[in-house]
Amino acid sequence: MDRIPILRMGEFLLVTIQVDMHDQLALTLQDDLSEQIRRHGSRGVLIDISALDIVDSFIGRMIATISALSKIMDAETVLVGMQPAVAITLVELGLTLPGVSTALNVERGMSLLRDRVRSQ
Amino acid sequence: MDRIPILRMGEFLLVTIQVDMHDQLALTLQDDLSEQIRRHGSRGVLIDISALDIVDSFIGRMIATISALSKIMDAETVLVGMQPAVAITLVELGLTLPGVSTALNVERGMSLLRDRVRSQ
Repeated sequence: MDRIPILRMGEFLLVTIQVDMHDQLALTLQDDLSEQIRRHGSRGVLIDISALDIVDSFIGRMIATISALSKIMDAETVLVGMQPAVAITLVELGLTLPGVSTALNVERGMSLLRDRVRSQ
Repeated sequence: MDRIPILRMGEFLLVTIQVDMHDQLALTLQDDLSEQIRRHGSRGVLIDISALDIVDSFIGRMIATISALSKIMDAETVLVGMQPAVAITLVELGLTLPGVSTALNVERGMSLLRDRVRSQ
């Protein structure tokens, strides 16, 4: 697979990460995502990581970069579906994902995004 | 990866297939999906295949099985995001995906599901 699909859900975009990320895939995702935000005027990005058993510093940095990139383009990013074991590992490693909002699942993440967009 | 994530979006479920399917993964997906339909009383299932460059008879059969399974549990299935090249190959191979509805993207698929559920 050479790119991660980005699904449009109304004014938000949903990215489900299921495969191991590598440099080129991460760069392609950033390019595709910024292009989709521009094209559709999206106000929020949901990144679902429920399929990931491991979140290392590479994935963490990629998520932080996507979040910063979206912010510049006036879109909020919410990370959803983190497994409990992943959360424990992140805390133990001291990876705090600064500037990234989280929600338990896609529904709550979408509700959080709606509240944020409405309150602006 | 040992299972494909199923995301709940209101009364519908969304499955994004990004990896090569094999027997065990397909069986696990069917089990997980029927369990989620039961638990949440979901009325529809969206299967996104925009990441797939190839849809062979194995994937085709799996999609038809999921569709039949969902139908028995009172949920409609819509296949979304098919790449043009995949559609051409399916027609050339004579794989017609009987009983499976399709839509261009997730938004249209969700709109189709909403119409169907309302008209029941």
